[in-house]
Amino acid sequence: MAGIVAFAITAVLALAPGGIDLFSAIVLGIITAIGGGTIRDLILDVPVFWGLDLNYIWVALAASVACFAAHSLFSRKEIYGLLLYVDGFGAALFAIQAVDKVWALGFGLPLVPIILGVVTAIGGGLLRDVLTGRPTLLMTKELYATPVLTGCILYVVILYLLPEYRLFSAVGCCLFIFGIRAAAIYWSLSVPDWLITKVRK
Amino acid sequence: MAGIVAFAITAVLALAPGGIDLFSAIVLGIITAIGGGTIRDLILDVPVFWGLDLNYIWVALAASVACFAAHSLFSRKEIYGLLLYVDGFGAALFAIQAVDKVWALGFGLPLVPIILGVVTAIGGGLLRDVLTGRPTLLMTKELYATPVLTGCILYVVILYLLPEYRLFSAVGCCLFIFGIRAAAIYWSLSVPDWLITKVRK
Amino acid sequence: MAGIVAFAITAVLALAPGGIDLFSAIVLGIITAIGGGTIRDLILDVPVFWGLDLNYIWVALAASVACFAAHSLFSRKEIYGLLLYVDGFGAALFAIQAVDKVWALGFGLPLVPIILGVVTAIGGGLLRDVLTGRPTLLMTKELYATPVLTGCILYVVILYLLPEYRLFSAVGCCLFIFGIRAAAIYWSLSVPDWLITKVRK
Repeated sequence: MAGIVAFAITAVLALAPGGIDLFSAIVLGIITAIGGGTIRDLILDVPVFWGLDLNYIWVALAASVACFAAHSLFSRKEIYGLLLYVDGFGAALFAIQAVDKVWALGFGLPLVPIILGVVTAIGGGLLRDVLTGRPTLLMTKELYATPVLTGCILYVVILYLLPEYRLFSAVGCCLFIFGIRAAAIYWSLSVPDWLITKVRK
Repeated sequence: MAGIVAFAITAVLALAPGGIDLFSAIVLGIITAIGGGTIRDLILDVPVFWGLDLNYIWVALAASVACFAAHSLFSRKEIYGLLLYVDGFGAALFAIQAVDKVWALGFGLPLVPIILGVVTAIGGGLLRDVLTGRPTLLMTKELYATPVLTGCILYVVILYLLPEYRLFSAVGCCLFIFGIRAAAIYWSLSVPDWLITKVRK
Repeated sequence: MAGIVAFAITAVLALAPGGIDLFSAIVLGIITAIGGGTIRDLILDVPVFWGLDLNYIWVALAASVACFAAHSLFSRKEIYGLLLYVDGFGAALFAIQAVDKVWALGFGLPLVPIILGVVTAIGGGLLRDVLTGRPTLLMTKELYATPVLTGCILYVVILYLLPEYRLFSAVGCCLFIFGIRAAAIYWSLSVPDWLITKVRK
């Protein structure tokens, strides 16, 4: 839920400077918040999570509207900085929850839980960027998706080796992802150069 | 059906000036016409509507080809103007039909019918704009999606309060959406300023 | 499988000059390789093919990583040229396989097999281009999708008229698509002008 709120708010904030109307703010806030999980559920062929529990949408809706109304407050530097951390925490939570859900379904182990964990964490943001014509995070050097991927792999390895510590390791991997992401925000880290193809001259 | 035709034609027309080939015209015409309903059916986990009744695709196909062949005719000012109204009527029809379909399935009331109504009406256009690299309507000030949303909410409220007037209210909400949209086209209305975030200087 | 490898590699290669990180290379390589088939399976409402046989993902993953590591080798002119042919062959294979799969399911004959054949062949590339903000092939004059469409139509016609030659005609249509595509690469053919709308001045 905290993740949903953070995703919706950061989405609206990211777009507010360009001047968007209330409808677009709501649509993009909701899409960003629930888009990743929706793609996951479609691929798993299970009912979409927000169809079963409407609270997810109410929360995303409320957060989008609140943020639209008070975007000058939320876009203050200190508050926006705080929200970046909440957003990172949301992504971590989404990813690990998704891995857990797919693992429990026993669908395509061990690869599919990792893939859908990443999809859930970044899918909403990708949809938002594509719909608004901004470069997606796949095109930037921000250290966002790599820690998510690392954490999901780690969690699957632990689930495989030590299934009895499931809850413990879920919390651990969540904190692991959030820790790296928080460090990346704090020190403005980006993806190290050796992980990037060189631009040919 | 009229909506399908209008969606396919306006899609091809919107793209013709840039110079597209027959294949792209067909693909984009069909995607625009059936894209929104396809997303809706995927989320509802019901068979896609055009798989059950191929006439939808035949019509979209024929409209795309006809429009490709005669785009200089269709892009004449008076005819294109007329098509904008047909397109608006199609969107209204799609939205209300979708709300009705989801309401009948009893899936995630009352929010999900509204969401999927909006998705059905604007989804095809969003896909078209994303695939052709144009700014989506979420980024413009055109008064298109807001009346659709308002009409869907209205219809759900009426379905809830007065379920015995279902057909009557469906027609009414359809006309309501179309009326606002037609007014927006006729007087070139856009989303009022108080519904738009201010651009920070 | 060869198609998967070719799709993943050409995806990473196409993006390498811009400088992408390992994570994005893997994600985009995998999406390009399995995206089209995933959309097809979602619309058919059957389990996604890579969930049933993880080898598809392992292969796409390995190809993406290998290509990331050795992109300067793969982007050599002669090797990249070779890969374009492999990519064309992959698209032909994907399309005919998909037509065959949908035909066997008897879903929405005769139109839906053709549509999903085309979607499977070009869907992954479309997703890649949309996520990376490049113009999709629907916007270029490259002779890529038209031969795929022609081949799919041809295959469906043969399946209808001569169902006893299924394997034979599948191979034939595959070679037909590949032949046109190879000719298009070799002689740099593009879509003929009479298939393109004229740009209005």
